Amino acid sequence: MPEAGEPMASEAGSLRNGRAMRVGDLARELGCELEGDADVPIDGVASLEDAGRRDLSFVRSPGFAAPLRTSRAGAIIAPHGIDAGERPVIRSLHPGLDFARATRRLIPESVPPPGLSERAWVSKQASVDATASVGPGCAVGAGASIGPRSVLHANVSLYEDVKVGADCVIHAGCVLREQTLLGDRVILQPGVVLGGDGFAYLSSEEGIEKVPQVGRVIVADDAEIGANATVDRGALGDTCIGRAAKIDNLVQIAHNCVIGDEVIIIAQAGLSGSTRVERGAVVMAQAGAVGHLTIGAGAVVGPKAGVHKDVASGTRVLGSPQRDASLQRRIVAALPRLPDLLRRVRRLEKRRGDGEDEVDGPR
Amino acid sequence: MPEAGEPMASEAGSLRNGRAMRVGDLARELGCELEGDADVPIDGVASLEDAGRRDLSFVRSPGFAAPLRTSRAGAIIAPHGIDAGERPVIRSLHPGLDFARATRRLIPESVPPPGLSERAWVSKQASVDATASVGPGCAVGAGASIGPRSVLHANVSLYEDVKVGADCVIHAGCVLREQTLLGDRVILQPGVVLGGDGFAYLSSEEGIEKVPQVGRVIVADDAEIGANATVDRGALGDTCIGRAAKIDNLVQIAHNCVIGDEVIIIAQAGLSGSTRVERGAVVMAQAGAVGHLTIGAGAVVGPKAGVHKDVASGTRVLGSPQRDASLQRRIVAALPRLPDLLRRVRRLEKRRGDGEDEVDGPR
Amino acid sequence: MPEAGEPMASEAGSLRNGRAMRVGDLARELGCELEGDADVPIDGVASLEDAGRRDLSFVRSPGFAAPLRTSRAGAIIAPHGIDAGERPVIRSLHPGLDFARATRRLIPESVPPPGLSERAWVSKQASVDATASVGPGCAVGAGASIGPRSVLHANVSLYEDVKVGADCVIHAGCVLREQTLLGDRVILQPGVVLGGDGFAYLSSEEGIEKVPQVGRVIVADDAEIGANATVDRGALGDTCIGRAAKIDNLVQIAHNCVIGDEVIIIAQAGLSGSTRVERGAVVMAQAGAVGHLTIGAGAVVGPKAGVHKDVASGTRVLGSPQRDASLQRRIVAALPRLPDLLRRVRRLEKRRGDGEDEVDGPR
Repeated sequence: MPEAGEPMASEAGSLRNGRAMRVGDLARELGCELEGDADVPIDGVASLEDAGRRDLSFVRSPGFAAPLRTSRAGAIIAPHGIDAGERPVIRSLHPGLDFARATRRLIPESVPPPGLSERAWVSKQASVDATASVGPGCAVGAGASIGPRSVLHANVSLYEDVKVGADCVIHAGCVLREQTLLGDRVILQPGVVLGGDGFAYLSSEEGIEKVPQVGRVIVADDAEIGANATVDRGALGDTCIGRAAKIDNLVQIAHNCVIGDEVIIIAQAGLSGSTRVERGAVVMAQAGAVGHLTIGAGAVVGPKAGVHKDVASGTRVLGSPQRDASLQRRIVAALPRLPDLLRRVRRLEKRRGDGEDEVDGPR
Repeated sequence: MPEAGEPMASEAGSLRNGRAMRVGDLARELGCELEGDADVPIDGVASLEDAGRRDLSFVRSPGFAAPLRTSRAGAIIAPHGIDAGERPVIRSLHPGLDFARATRRLIPESVPPPGLSERAWVSKQASVDATASVGPGCAVGAGASIGPRSVLHANVSLYEDVKVGADCVIHAGCVLREQTLLGDRVILQPGVVLGGDGFAYLSSEEGIEKVPQVGRVIVADDAEIGANATVDRGALGDTCIGRAAKIDNLVQIAHNCVIGDEVIIIAQAGLSGSTRVERGAVVMAQAGAVGHLTIGAGAVVGPKAGVHKDVASGTRVLGSPQRDASLQRRIVAALPRLPDLLRRVRRLEKRRGDGEDEVDGPR
Repeated sequence: MPEAGEPMASEAGSLRNGRAMRVGDLARELGCELEGDADVPIDGVASLEDAGRRDLSFVRSPGFAAPLRTSRAGAIIAPHGIDAGERPVIRSLHPGLDFARATRRLIPESVPPPGLSERAWVSKQASVDATASVGPGCAVGAGASIGPRSVLHANVSLYEDVKVGADCVIHAGCVLREQTLLGDRVILQPGVVLGGDGFAYLSSEEGIEKVPQVGRVIVADDAEIGANATVDRGALGDTCIGRAAKIDNLVQIAHNCVIGDEVIIIAQAGLSGSTRVERGAVVMAQAGAVGHLTIGAGAVVGPKAGVHKDVASGTRVLGSPQRDASLQRRIVAALPRLPDLLRRVRRLEKRRGDGEDEVDGPR
């Protein structure tokens, strides 16, 4: 067993799938110019430090000149003007992006074969495209449908009338309750729960009564949701996750939230009911919002922030309760002086003979 | 694929199950008076905005007069004295409550048929009532028992000696470890884990040793626990969730907590070991409590609060660390003035020639 | 159904497995001295209050003299010099530790029989040791291997090429994505997700692109991870959990974190990408750390702390943003005086005729 924290370059740092590719072909696919020997074979990706002779690596800026010189990488993606030594270099305006694309090409995600596992249970009233894959232990309820090339890994549970679009990937252990609707190319990491009942109860003379939650969860195209995150079904209308929204692990989205397109919500953040997050806004980790408010387009809610009123589009809030970011920063900078400030004010009062104003006793 | 955030009134806003009901019959079942045509058929529920001719909607107060006038709802639940136009109106003292009850009547939750799925694994030493339902992929260990009409959706795992009462609903993917005990009418949303080991280790000359966790989790009648929430088993005695307690998604309850009857704990809150939450107390979202303390009956712990000592019954605390709510509000209101206060005190000191007291240098 | 919170001494407080043991034999196994009758039979463990005649209990210090006198426990573990009355007493330098060991001996964890459940799906390209146990509903992918005596409880999903060492316990519903690597004696509580994709996207002219996450999760020997916790796979290199690290429920560990040996991370804490937590550090509940920083060996991060820069080895930080613990305590103590301080400074200004400095209007 390797020790955690040990560099394990030979195995871990370098990832390969065994299928070699000429670096010239790779450059062509990326639409980039190649300098150097197009015939060098590449079959893995790695950081500069970990890379070996058959690995591709990348640099973003001249700041990486030193590790680049000592790196054993077989080829490099780099901006124009950076000296990559003897090896071939793929010139790129966006090295990080082209490296991501090269990684996808060199180490394609393993895709299970199409068809239904013998160990899956699929209702006769469900409709599964012939090119879709349903893994062992899955349960697919009546009225459910699964579109072309979508993959359900092991032990996924789809309740009745769930609709999954094309090219979705639903990882193991996810649960989609009745009537949940996924667009195309949606990715759910393991353990995601969509469509659990929203939290709603009313007091009556007979005790606490549950308010039926009869809305749905709708996830638009290209959205991704992280491991063990939860999105509750709507109470009456729907809870909506917008196109290409990216939601991280262990996030909680309550009933009737409307999450706009390309919104980003980082791990362990939570949104109470009917929160509206507009296009491109970012909610950082462990932040929270009380319900029935709007986080405007492009706004940024800082980590651990407590949002209790609307956040205007394009603004940035920090702290709990939320404050304008620059004000919050000034408060945070001033706080360490508060204990001493108490002492100074007391001294001012004393020197002026303001003893009668002394209020610093125990309260 | 509909865009997230788009109104989808025709499908989403209006929920129907196809079984029409005369509005007069509905009013009678609710024990309410009907004004207008008792023969109008209703088979769905919706908000005022989304409702169509066969939908029931509701208003709580005269403030909704305008949307009520333009709503196309076929029938309305409303307090006495509110003009609902031409359509039939069910008069109610508690419109929200009666609307919830009507929803339950018009859109009953889909219940799987009784019996064991062929794809379930049930130990021969388990006892499952003939009217209970065990879904595909479930595993029911030796000594477990499942009471009348209780439902296990897909892929639920019950370890040995778990006892499930009558009329429980255990959603897909839940895990109940050995000896967990559920009362009647308990609802577990998907992914709940009951009975995981509490977090307890001791240092010894041989390293870190795990302290065996041999208590149970006991959930009383009518409690509900939200998606992916976790309740750890007791170390020696039991972890107890009280009658009709309502626990939201992603909440963490550590070993030997005792959660009283009708307690409410909102999403992502966490209670450390042996916390006692007394009857009817409310713990808001993302709050936390260190262990071995008591949150008194009817107390309210605000969102994100950090509770480190007892909270007296009926009181309200905010902030981290916790403070009496009114004090915390005054502090929060004063904080934006702190940076300026530093400047003002410096000026007072300077004017008095108190330069020698200047302590505002870098610290 | 017992009421939550009711003492249920007869059932709950006393845990027995039916196999009685002479207290003399137990003392010998613990390597402790026995005073009193070695033949007293013991088959359960309980707290002093709940214990009956056949139960073992323990005290740590003379402070428990009163409950010890009234306890009905059949035998006691106690330090030297504490009078335990008539019953036999096992003398111990570390009563808590010896009680934990006695509990493990008297109430061994129930272990499922070795072999593959008929209801499991195991790839023909997987390798499962003959002494390992694979429960119903498990899925074990191609290239996976499971070592001697390791146990997969129900509905565990192992993707391709997952390696599980010897004597591991993987509880129900866990998901280990491709290439995850567990050492020996690792314990995963139910619902743990290892190897979900890290959160990484790039903007391009074609929209938001996902950055492939091709690293692994590596968990070293003797680590334990709590229910529904999530550990993301590395982006390029690996995410590493150190030897005997203990991670509590609902914790989030992002890609490429390196968690050192014997680190403790309490419930609902979250670490952003590439956070390094060195040996023996403690991160308390609901704390968070932004990425690419180091929490030094033996450091303690307080509950709900927000870590945004390195924490030096052996130090203690509190608050959000983090501050040295003693400074944060002084700020917290001073804050309740802030509202009054505003008033006092205004008074000082007024008395001096500093009205022109008045800045207390609405801002």
